[in-house]
Amino acid sequence: MSQSTLDYVLAQRIQGLDSSAIRKAFELAGTLKDPINLSIGQPHFPCPPNIVEAGVKALRDGKTAYTLTAGIPELKEALSQKYKQENGIDYASPDRLLVTSGISSAFLLLFNSLLNEGDECLVVTPHFLMYPAYIKIYGGKMNTISEDFQPEDLNVFKDKKLKIIIFSTPSNPTGTVLTKKQLTALAELAEKTGAYLISDEIYEKFDYDKSFLSVGSFYERAITLSGFSKTYSMTGLRLASIVAPAPIIKTLTTLQQYTLVCAPSVTQWMGIEALKTEMQPYIDDYKEKRDYVYENLKDHYQLKKSGGAFYFFLKIKEKDDDFVVRAVKEKGLILVPGYIFVDSKEYIRISFASEWENLKRGITALKELAS
Amino acid sequence: MSQSTLDYVLAQRIQGLDSSAIRKAFELAGTLKDPINLSIGQPHFPCPPNIVEAGVKALRDGKTAYTLTAGIPELKEALSQKYKQENGIDYASPDRLLVTSGISSAFLLLFNSLLNEGDECLVVTPHFLMYPAYIKIYGGKMNTISEDFQPEDLNVFKDKKLKIIIFSTPSNPTGTVLTKKQLTALAELAEKTGAYLISDEIYEKFDYDKSFLSVGSFYERAITLSGFSKTYSMTGLRLASIVAPAPIIKTLTTLQQYTLVCAPSVTQWMGIEALKTEMQPYIDDYKEKRDYVYENLKDHYQLKKSGGAFYFFLKIKEKDDDFVVRAVKEKGLILVPGYIFVDSKEYIRISFASEWENLKRGITALKELAS
Repeated sequence: MSQSTLDYVLAQRIQGLDSSAIRKAFELAGTLKDPINLSIGQPHFPCPPNIVEAGVKALRDGKTAYTLTAGIPELKEALSQKYKQENGIDYASPDRLLVTSGISSAFLLLFNSLLNEGDECLVVTPHFLMYPAYIKIYGGKMNTISEDFQPEDLNVFKDKKLKIIIFSTPSNPTGTVLTKKQLTALAELAEKTGAYLISDEIYEKFDYDKSFLSVGSFYERAITLSGFSKTYSMTGLRLASIVAPAPIIKTLTTLQQYTLVCAPSVTQWMGIEALKTEMQPYIDDYKEKRDYVYENLKDHYQLKKSGGAFYFFLKIKEKDDDFVVRAVKEKGLILVPGYIFVDSKEYIRISFASEWENLKRGITALKELAS
Repeated sequence: MSQSTLDYVLAQRIQGLDSSAIRKAFELAGTLKDPINLSIGQPHFPCPPNIVEAGVKALRDGKTAYTLTAGIPELKEALSQKYKQENGIDYASPDRLLVTSGISSAFLLLFNSLLNEGDECLVVTPHFLMYPAYIKIYGGKMNTISEDFQPEDLNVFKDKKLKIIIFSTPSNPTGTVLTKKQLTALAELAEKTGAYLISDEIYEKFDYDKSFLSVGSFYERAITLSGFSKTYSMTGLRLASIVAPAPIIKTLTTLQQYTLVCAPSVTQWMGIEALKTEMQPYIDDYKEKRDYVYENLKDHYQLKKSGGAFYFFLKIKEKDDDFVVRAVKEKGLILVPGYIFVDSKEYIRISFASEWENLKRGITALKELAS
């Protein structure tokens, strides 16, 4: 009996899911000699040594068994304090918290738990590429609103039966930080339509102008997602948390029990140490890089100054695919095409999560590519 | 705006998922003073120190970033060798392999990718409690066949359009190891009906009479699942692998990219060391415990001698819930009721993954409860 004799029939929900263009760029980088890489979606600095040593201690202390489904109590307590003090979410008690295996897993639990086939979703765009993927997997319908929206622009959605409203702030791919006026308008729309409002705050600490605000600080029905991956450079260790109304947390916890079981135990112990770690010097470095990129590219490309995250979203004059290929061929420069984040072929995303040397080479190459 | 003013409407697919009775027992254990615990579904021994130190090295070497979606090449290569040499799966090349975050995550990827609403599934029973949960989440219909089946018993299914056939061998909760005749019959049924045949081999090394066989060794369309959690006592570290036909692996990898992203990076490095670790002394200890339990209980309960895993499934004379409550109240003994594994209230599951002292106290208590 051979594998070629029968078809492999896949479930409808996942047909058409494509490999991520980000990963393609990442793999392309491996084929070049001495490439300039401005495509990376994770910090260039190593995970701080005190966090690493907390992992070493947890391993040697035998913290290798299953944890409680919702996370170890010590981490939940530390997260509760973090949300209250740093995010102004005063209702973030440990029973309103779930510890999970990265923000992607949080999406999995949320969309699986909340979205029925045919449900309407609203995504603030340009958007992280996983949002439409999840909406597709679980059979939802996607609507978009530009991140530059004014409150009155949301009126067209107010009579829709929305199920999920989702956005990232600071944004991947644009670095835009949503304003209080915008967040208030989204919360009002959620309240009016009965939608769940999901705030993806994985880049919360990469907030260069102190403009970031958690919608959960003034809207208690918000579902707030925070990650450890980007802030502490531990993307491979899989840790994030969710604050949500208690009935939602209960449901997500049950589903986690049947799917992820628990976030990795050792990583959870590292999380406690991470929350005590001062990351401001790393953020200051990225702020300097943000300013450098903006100053050097603003006369060559149409671009908005990033308020956060570590990306710029550049408008270009040719199709994004063509530009990306030309950048590789002419300059050995790896970029991410914009079409995976927005319904347009006019943008590319660059990341300044990079050493200075690579970044400077990349910006020089971009200036030359524009002329 | 308060959380009480609006309902929380959950997706249909997860309504009715209950908290696992295993976890309930586990939490109950925490409330007793000096309980006897025979409910635990993980080894009682610590993760071997060489594996722990491989984790320490990986952490200090900075292996904290995302890995390739399908797993680090070094681990995939080591797994390929393991499947070929230890399981007789000679087609288990690295491109037929996916590394994922534990067997539960493997189920998530598989059921999500393969099962459409209304699809028929066949589960060999008594069964691991997650199988029906996944069938429910993804809208499948569950059929069962007793693990004691004869090949001709499968004839009733041969004209059904089965989508998934799933079993564990050695089994949780019975410890039964399926015979070659049974596996062959299941493979033939899969071939005839076009079903995917999923073999959950997480307890493969807990094989006390050397009777375990991978169906993948003679049936190339099989989907074989192996875990690190039980064999190496690293349940909290989340690591498992899947061998399947290449188109399935490609699909699962794409879905993993959008959900789990990658298995925890440090755990993957520990996996390489784990595969070099001799676990036979641990298995010999459990074999001795298996024999002890059987010899001491066979005159008090109707039970089949376990061939593998670390469980016995005992027939009792009262309702399982009542028996479990009585065991707690009269003896401080924690057990798992059988109904979560089989459509019957006549069984309890005991685990002999335990220190000798706890095990002996537990068996004495069980003898007294039977009289």
